[in-house]
Amino acid sequence: MVRGRISRLSVRDVRFPTSLGGHGSDAMHTDPDYSAAYVVIETDAEDGIKGCGITFTLGKGTEVVVCAVNALAHHVLNKDLKDIVGDFRGFYRQLTSDGQLRWIGPEKGVVHLATAAVLNAVWDLWAKQEGKPVWKLLVDMDPRTLVSCIDFRYITDVLTEEDALEILQKGQVGKKEREKQMLAQGYPAYTTSCAWLGYSDDTLKQLCAQALKDGWTRADLPVKSLFLQMMDANQRWDVPEAVEWMSKLAKFKPLWIEEPTSPDDILGHATISKALVPLGIGIATGEQCHNRVIFKQLLQAKALQFLQIDSCRLGSVNENLSVLLMAKKFEIPVCPHAGGVGLCELVQHLIIFDYISVSASLENRVCEYVDHLHEHFKYPVMIQRASYMPPKDPGYSTEMKEESVKKHQYPDGEVWKKLLPAQEN
Amino acid sequence: MVRGRISRLSVRDVRFPTSLGGHGSDAMHTDPDYSAAYVVIETDAEDGIKGCGITFTLGKGTEVVVCAVNALAHHVLNKDLKDIVGDFRGFYRQLTSDGQLRWIGPEKGVVHLATAAVLNAVWDLWAKQEGKPVWKLLVDMDPRTLVSCIDFRYITDVLTEEDALEILQKGQVGKKEREKQMLAQGYPAYTTSCAWLGYSDDTLKQLCAQALKDGWTRADLPVKSLFLQMMDANQRWDVPEAVEWMSKLAKFKPLWIEEPTSPDDILGHATISKALVPLGIGIATGEQCHNRVIFKQLLQAKALQFLQIDSCRLGSVNENLSVLLMAKKFEIPVCPHAGGVGLCELVQHLIIFDYISVSASLENRVCEYVDHLHEHFKYPVMIQRASYMPPKDPGYSTEMKEESVKKHQYPDGEVWKKLLPAQEN
Repeated sequence: MVRGRISRLSVRDVRFPTSLGGHGSDAMHTDPDYSAAYVVIETDAEDGIKGCGITFTLGKGTEVVVCAVNALAHHVLNKDLKDIVGDFRGFYRQLTSDGQLRWIGPEKGVVHLATAAVLNAVWDLWAKQEGKPVWKLLVDMDPRTLVSCIDFRYITDVLTEEDALEILQKGQVGKKEREKQMLAQGYPAYTTSCAWLGYSDDTLKQLCAQALKDGWTRADLPVKSLFLQMMDANQRWDVPEAVEWMSKLAKFKPLWIEEPTSPDDILGHATISKALVPLGIGIATGEQCHNRVIFKQLLQAKALQFLQIDSCRLGSVNENLSVLLMAKKFEIPVCPHAGGVGLCELVQHLIIFDYISVSASLENRVCEYVDHLHEHFKYPVMIQRASYMPPKDPGYSTEMKEESVKKHQYPDGEVWKKLLPAQEN
Repeated sequence: MVRGRISRLSVRDVRFPTSLGGHGSDAMHTDPDYSAAYVVIETDAEDGIKGCGITFTLGKGTEVVVCAVNALAHHVLNKDLKDIVGDFRGFYRQLTSDGQLRWIGPEKGVVHLATAAVLNAVWDLWAKQEGKPVWKLLVDMDPRTLVSCIDFRYITDVLTEEDALEILQKGQVGKKEREKQMLAQGYPAYTTSCAWLGYSDDTLKQLCAQALKDGWTRADLPVKSLFLQMMDANQRWDVPEAVEWMSKLAKFKPLWIEEPTSPDDILGHATISKALVPLGIGIATGEQCHNRVIFKQLLQAKALQFLQIDSCRLGSVNENLSVLLMAKKFEIPVCPHAGGVGLCELVQHLIIFDYISVSASLENRVCEYVDHLHEHFKYPVMIQRASYMPPKDPGYSTEMKEESVKKHQYPDGEVWKKLLPAQEN
């Protein structure tokens, strides 16, 4: 089924002026313009199928990620798609271990975001050619093939290829029933749409009331507001502060505190977790964890109770597979980060696959949802009864409407041509 | 003394075709072209003094760092130098916590390398205006002012402002004698020049013999060669492999094994360290540790016995100060990473300051040295009797010869105009 040689890679800087409305603002990111480096790959197969991939950014700096995608392009161009997916581990290694480029990473920050955008496009292309949504491509895939997509470098002390295979083989039991269940009921979500830091208290109350009416029973609120289920500190605190503040806020019985401190501080999260778990508060983190090595350690150190994968910061499906499997090994529930631009569209595939083929559990599990910017996607998420309904269209739901891309290209799109002169005045 | 408003920032992509000779090659970086994003800042002070800053790269990807420097430029332009250095902690925080840019870091990878280049230029400018080399500027600085340059965010569980002050105040005792000692004898170095992986065994033997003749008694050799004092694995191994291999190599009694695994794997380094220290082998790491939060944890976890700071990966002098102070608190010797382009020029300032004002010890301490590319710097390092002699010229020794920059600019410099068509054929 897999066909064609990659004949073209284009990447564009697409920005939505969300900072104008305070959407997405938090303690550390006060004025985000939700943006994406948007990659499109084409083949010479003459079937008209394109692979689309994104990585999520906050406005400024998208041009830096675009530049990094261009630096990676030579690893993709002129490759046969069947050679790429036939040795996906090798291809992943090639992208992430380029002898010159790895110095400016490795597997972190800008180059890794660029890697994610490129690999997301490859997965979209592959799934489209197979005529399946990515979650279904993964669910139907033989465990050996799944494992062959994963680079186990630096995680074999926790998860070997054999461990991974064993988990996936166990996951085959009851798979069909769980797939049916997902198709009927969807995957449970929680909403962050009602509580960005830049919103006024009145807006916040109004949106929360509306969310409850719409059937949302789980919401994530920034630390400033005091009625909540999940709290998000957005890396605001040092370790002692996090313990002190959350001990005071324990009376509000939050399910978790998200990102209490630096995303790099594994031992810090472990200290915070040790102090707060006895108070009934879990630690959630992951949206800025830069690779599987960090997740491995968070699990080893018992530093988190909820693991938040991100579809655009880790190295696409490949690296996320390794994290889902490690989480399963440690029996830590995965509750993905979403929102931004397209993060909901992508991550739903991963978490639905996780339920059907890996975790086989919905206990303590929810996937973040934010009701923004879906209108720019060709295959937007479908939410019913506060749940993600499994996508049916082939691909990774990454394709944007060409009109939206053109309008929001930075700095030459229509939207920015109007806004930029106004902002300069 | 400090004067002028930053009126211009330029950044250039400068590459040296070192891969042609196999210089600098190691297990993971097989074909490096030693390169730099080279930043020059100018003021309106009409004194002709420019601040020059670099960050080191390996060829491809330098253009990505250049792009990131441009994204940071608006934080620097039109600022008074006295406002920057008068609240250097605030300025550091502003650069590293830009609400939109921090998403593509934070404080890691490309954006942090770019931050280093910009801040290195600011330190060069400041020191030149004060008429002192950076090491001397630091040595003469009041402990309170030194501390005001450091952002303590995310490290207060290990080092508070008060801790830092106490260490620096203790360091005042005997400072003058140690300064005299440095000026007379210099800081001990070890050489890596003789043993790049791409060199043949014959070349290697010849260079080692020559190095011994030149008075070098300490050398760093890649794992392939078996006569050695320090070994460097360059992140080649997973944790169990590192333990297995080094247990076998213990009979050669290396002082340390450098970068046995992923630079992100704090707990992995701790496991390796626990296994190897009883065999008499220390763990050295740091050249790819991306920020102070990682160093903090390596120290907390007893994961290293030799701490290798890097002058161009961490956020310049500011962040390195915090790491030197944490190392002192844990009594772990600092043995800087150097080589590349300009790394020796910069890091000598930090380690000489460390000896005079912080560690007050030379025990188990050496600074890496590589005899490459110094001819392109206006104020190159001076090595005597295998020691770094303290620089006397004002600034951070970062200024490159304009002729060298022009010739090696990528892709338009004379050197590349000749090489690129040849490489394409």
